[in-house]
Amino acid sequence: MVAAVLKSRLLRKRGCGVGLQALLESGTGTEQRISRQQYGRQQDRLRVDLVNAQFDLLELKLPVVVLIAGDDRIGINEVVQLLHAWMDARYLDTQIALEPTPQELQHPPFWPFWRALPPRGRIGLYVGGWVVAPIRGRLARDLDDDAFEAYLGHAARFEQALAADGALVLKLWLHLPRKELKRRLAGERPDEDAAWQIQDSDSAVLNEWYRWVPLADRLLEATDSPTARWHVIDGTHERARNLTAARIILAGLQRLLARRTSRPGGNSRRGRQPVRYPNALAAIDLAMRFSEDDAYEAALDKQQGALARLTREAREEGLSSVVVLEGWDAAGKGGAIRRLTRAMEVRDYRVVPIAAPTPEEQAHHYLWRFWRHLPPAGQMTIFDRSWYGRVLVERVEGFARPEAWERAYDEILDFERQLLEHGTVLLKFWLHIDADEQLDRFAAREKTPFKKYRIGTDDYRNRARRADYVSAANEMVARTSTKSAPWHLIPANDKRYARVAVARTLCGALRKAL
Amino acid sequence: MVAAVLKSRLLRKRGCGVGLQALLESGTGTEQRISRQQYGRQQDRLRVDLVNAQFDLLELKLPVVVLIAGDDRIGINEVVQLLHAWMDARYLDTQIALEPTPQELQHPPFWPFWRALPPRGRIGLYVGGWVVAPIRGRLARDLDDDAFEAYLGHAARFEQALAADGALVLKLWLHLPRKELKRRLAGERPDEDAAWQIQDSDSAVLNEWYRWVPLADRLLEATDSPTARWHVIDGTHERARNLTAARIILAGLQRLLARRTSRPGGNSRRGRQPVRYPNALAAIDLAMRFSEDDAYEAALDKQQGALARLTREAREEGLSSVVVLEGWDAAGKGGAIRRLTRAMEVRDYRVVPIAAPTPEEQAHHYLWRFWRHLPPAGQMTIFDRSWYGRVLVERVEGFARPEAWERAYDEILDFERQLLEHGTVLLKFWLHIDADEQLDRFAAREKTPFKKYRIGTDDYRNRARRADYVSAANEMVARTSTKSAPWHLIPANDKRYARVAVARTLCGALRKAL
Repeated sequence: MVAAVLKSRLLRKRGCGVGLQALLESGTGTEQRISRQQYGRQQDRLRVDLVNAQFDLLELKLPVVVLIAGDDRIGINEVVQLLHAWMDARYLDTQIALEPTPQELQHPPFWPFWRALPPRGRIGLYVGGWVVAPIRGRLARDLDDDAFEAYLGHAARFEQALAADGALVLKLWLHLPRKELKRRLAGERPDEDAAWQIQDSDSAVLNEWYRWVPLADRLLEATDSPTARWHVIDGTHERARNLTAARIILAGLQRLLARRTSRPGGNSRRGRQPVRYPNALAAIDLAMRFSEDDAYEAALDKQQGALARLTREAREEGLSSVVVLEGWDAAGKGGAIRRLTRAMEVRDYRVVPIAAPTPEEQAHHYLWRFWRHLPPAGQMTIFDRSWYGRVLVERVEGFARPEAWERAYDEILDFERQLLEHGTVLLKFWLHIDADEQLDRFAAREKTPFKKYRIGTDDYRNRARRADYVSAANEMVARTSTKSAPWHLIPANDKRYARVAVARTLCGALRKAL
Repeated sequence: MVAAVLKSRLLRKRGCGVGLQALLESGTGTEQRISRQQYGRQQDRLRVDLVNAQFDLLELKLPVVVLIAGDDRIGINEVVQLLHAWMDARYLDTQIALEPTPQELQHPPFWPFWRALPPRGRIGLYVGGWVVAPIRGRLARDLDDDAFEAYLGHAARFEQALAADGALVLKLWLHLPRKELKRRLAGERPDEDAAWQIQDSDSAVLNEWYRWVPLADRLLEATDSPTARWHVIDGTHERARNLTAARIILAGLQRLLARRTSRPGGNSRRGRQPVRYPNALAAIDLAMRFSEDDAYEAALDKQQGALARLTREAREEGLSSVVVLEGWDAAGKGGAIRRLTRAMEVRDYRVVPIAAPTPEEQAHHYLWRFWRHLPPAGQMTIFDRSWYGRVLVERVEGFARPEAWERAYDEILDFERQLLEHGTVLLKFWLHIDADEQLDRFAAREKTPFKKYRIGTDDYRNRARRADYVSAANEMVARTSTKSAPWHLIPANDKRYARVAVARTLCGALRKAL
């Protein structure tokens, strides 16, 4: 009711605040006054329920992300403070959006949010979160409309990735109506605590009202989705605001807990139409090889010399790069990587081998561990296997459920798009060998003095699934090759050809970017 | 032989380089030339052995730390590069000492080294490591003699803590004799690769020779111990240098692997003399209490107001603090913490609950997880239980072996000393209740609506060991109370008294530091 009244009243003013008003929670607003006694009673009940829900979450290891943002700075501070007092602060992981640190500036904008993501069971409380940067950036004209929209797209997909992974995503927008803000700026709400006092930034909110309201509207519209709804709370009356915020969170937690207990084991992919993707792997010309030792040595030397120069330049220019190597077991990924790193200074690169996730990694969204390893400015991270494991080994071996690997294509594309937008050079290699070559290499490995190459039964079993891997790889290539980050399919029956090809492609990309 | 010759020759010069020379590895030195063929053959063998040892380590999850430092900048770079080529770079965690980042400057000097510590099984390769800062600082006169010595003390104890935890600590000092450095500076070793070329900093090494050699001598002397030996390698001949460095590492790894397979299950504490520590807990006056509600409210309000102001000031001044709460189950730690945090802004503090370690934490030295949570400049970390678990619950319940918790006292003292030297405020509280009060609280908890307080059989079992906990706590208080970081023993039979006492002590300490 209250919401509807406000809505029609404010809609008349220049059409601003549509999103804000449309989403306004009932139970708050200018008419809602709650007595101190009522507040005390309701609060006591809420606190018990919140803490209990928190402990159930912890036990069931359910992931929760709460975003608190809005135009009401004081309200945000007070609500965050209050959640820390009402809930068990030990299990809240709070991240407050301040000025980005030098380290953060070396990474794509969503890097800090991925890093701050708590393991399942704890609550990730983002204050300001991914709302502050786009609005502030747009107001300051650091972002143009396209960049603003791109940022909102990443925000929506970030939230959706978390929700699809089973997380509860709760978003509160604390809003102070223009009239109330004016009243407070006029000094009608004196407060003893200096921290909460009206600051210059609050009058800026008023002065820029008609500039930021449409931005907030657009943000709310672009990032409001069934799995990540916005709740807009009117901050005029503190007690109503506090109770509403706490109730929204409690209701969310209880919904999540209830969902958990009645979870359907369904397989959403059952009805999927089989799609045939082009057999890109079959088109790789495996006959490519160096017939002469000298030619190989010369070609490799040339690429290594170039790589040494280019990585030095990249360090000076602050150009980061991410190199992904995927391919068959024994395709020569390790050897190709060693040929690259030998040409670089140790401080300029890091090789990250991707194996089965650790328990800590399993307690997070599967992309979390890759975000953690992104290179700082001027450096290179080489992934020996990568996030593509989701749509390769995890898909084929059934470690990920069909709906999980199915949505991974989009998640991966968004992840990579963020790297590219940040200016990172991204290269993806598939090292290809045929089944006979692989068998020969397994046999040879059994004879090498390197213990790491002792071949286990797993290797032969994986080999038996070759057809499944081929079709997974073809789908991966078809769905994740983009203009700026295509798959490079490298014939690797001749190891030496593959090494030179990888080095040459990398050098070419660095040269282009520098 | 070579070492002895060099030693006597150089000892005559101003007595400098004693430590360097005394520790010089045989197999390197001015007379050692190795042909290209010999080098190739020996290298092949070494590489196989190194990689195999690496994979055995990984399988057995054995911890290894390699420190490579010295005066031979080019030699260090080349050896590090070579180790990355000869070993499997995917399992090397390399940290290169560069200028400290803003984030690092907000923490004690050893923070980056703790953070870079790899989980057991991987090799932590520190380039420069904890050698660079003291020598550079002393040369630049940023460190006086006492600070230099204090730093060396921390370095020695850091290495010992790792070694005592089962880690292999290998330290290589790459040394270029004065004569050879002069020759190279005169351009007699032109090198095509710009990265390795003689730089200005190399002539600084020569110019300051007689200033840094005694510092290096002192450093080597102060940090050479049976469990963390220095190996000094002459870098005159590259091939000899490379083979020696690789052989020292290989020999160390093989020693560690052999030790592992023949590990005695011995208990070094068997012969320990029983020591009686003063019964500090018995001396706590548990009758302390607030008899009136008003007095409590007023006292708490006063402290919270003060805390609000002081934490704001601390933020502005960049003053960090670490607060530790230990005490009996149900002693009121959580409640005391909530009374503190309610007075602070959320961005100024972080509460870290310490429970049983995660698998990731278990794969590291036990202090690692506490180093990770140290506050940045201006912030406070509140530990709800702490590193003292090692000498309390882990001791009493037998989770740590006697020699492990026995050495923890020294490790803890050194850890805390580093915090204090960095200027961090450190407060340690023991919240004390008697056995009857604890039983009453358990009974009351069984009736509260808070699920987190559902009492398990563990709680009652722990209670049965009260005498063991008392004696462990008394020993802890006696051995880890220092002038700058004493234990504050808080009577907590009256929760309210305890809350005010904790807040008052914290405010007092902040006021003194600001």
